[in-house]
Amino acid sequence: MSESISEQVPLRAVLFDVFGTVVDWRASVAREVQAALADHKVSVDSNTFADRWRALYQPAMSRVRSGEIDFVPLDELHRENLDQVLEEFSIECLSEPEKVHLNLAWHRLDSWPDVVGGLQRLKAGYVIGTLSNGNIALMVNMAKRGQLPWDVILGAEVARAYKPQPQAYLGSARALGLAPDECMLVAAHNDDLKAAAQCGFRTAFVERPFEHGPDQQSNLVAENDYDHIARDFVDLAKQLGC
Amino acid sequence: MSESISEQVPLRAVLFDVFGTVVDWRASVAREVQAALADHKVSVDSNTFADRWRALYQPAMSRVRSGEIDFVPLDELHRENLDQVLEEFSIECLSEPEKVHLNLAWHRLDSWPDVVGGLQRLKAGYVIGTLSNGNIALMVNMAKRGQLPWDVILGAEVARAYKPQPQAYLGSARALGLAPDECMLVAAHNDDLKAAAQCGFRTAFVERPFEHGPDQQSNLVAENDYDHIARDFVDLAKQLGC
Repeated sequence: MSESISEQVPLRAVLFDVFGTVVDWRASVAREVQAALADHKVSVDSNTFADRWRALYQPAMSRVRSGEIDFVPLDELHRENLDQVLEEFSIECLSEPEKVHLNLAWHRLDSWPDVVGGLQRLKAGYVIGTLSNGNIALMVNMAKRGQLPWDVILGAEVARAYKPQPQAYLGSARALGLAPDECMLVAAHNDDLKAAAQCGFRTAFVERPFEHGPDQQSNLVAENDYDHIARDFVDLAKQLGC
Repeated sequence: MSESISEQVPLRAVLFDVFGTVVDWRASVAREVQAALADHKVSVDSNTFADRWRALYQPAMSRVRSGEIDFVPLDELHRENLDQVLEEFSIECLSEPEKVHLNLAWHRLDSWPDVVGGLQRLKAGYVIGTLSNGNIALMVNMAKRGQLPWDVILGAEVARAYKPQPQAYLGSARALGLAPDECMLVAAHNDDLKAAAQCGFRTAFVERPFEHGPDQQSNLVAENDYDHIARDFVDLAKQLGC
């Protein structure tokens, strides 16, 4: 839990997974789906809609990771997935501009309550940035809306690779001119942290037990011996001396 | 000077050239050169050293632009140029770690006095970011040191092209999900602004009459009909309604 290895290099950058770790994508997307359909007097189970849209996220990125298609920003994958979910739900009422707007719901996700305060503290001591599969525009718009004080937007679009491919982590560290062990990944997901650790990153698990709603089954506990395990970003800031 | 064309799309992002426009590279590099040599009791004309180092900047990038070498971040080009200037000045006293430190002088450049206040105002109304040939690490370290409140670091390393190649401007706009005419380049250099305008960017010339010292001959006046011509960043913020 602590920085106990005396020969360790100083930590320089604290980089964050975003969907689920920084923002509550499920409630935010559900809200946007409801808003988009309200004008058409159409009602759906918006949480289920959000879950289905998110469920297509990993399969879409897998096509890039496998080399089946060239790297494309997440906005484009989200749009293909949206069209598929709309078909599944037999929703045909949305115009093209309405679909474009709904697709950008992922730019308008609300952060968990501890995020802004925790990031402000961490920013005083470290470079703080995103290491997300979300594209640059998505991250910038989310940050402007939610007052997220990032020093830098890194991750998939900068590294041209989707997590958990090593290039996503290594390319982000390289862009900062840092060695992997000068960087920490903060995430609420064990798979992401394991992949980062294999690249030499330090790791911090943050608990987000409601990312998938009240009945969440996965990622409820830290499954590895991470450098830090924190209740939230303020707790992490305290553990890192900020 | 004003946003007079009624059918113009709203301006969304104000993007900045950095060396000379945001920071006073000449005085800052000269200060770093003096500091690096002071321990060795070596004295040089540090302004001339800075000018020579900077003079090798465009030729180095030309090798990338022409395709002679693959894209490499500016830190690497700066290092090759530093080695050449040290040889020209017959300076052989610096150790490898001292050269590494001196090369990162470009990460420690001071901003002009109006910059932080102007950027804070502009940030309230627009996405603000760098559109520089400097690499991401350089921009992040400069911003941390100088409290530059960028929303996003764009430019050469993200677009994989050095200005004034069109891809540097167009790739930066694309990373924000914006059309070129939703973006403005702010620069103290006519060539940069002309290239941006040819890509469809809006343009703002900011006067930096001492970038090259008291005897500056170039870029003293705006040579085109830019959208804005401003004394400094605070003046630009006022012109943009911030």
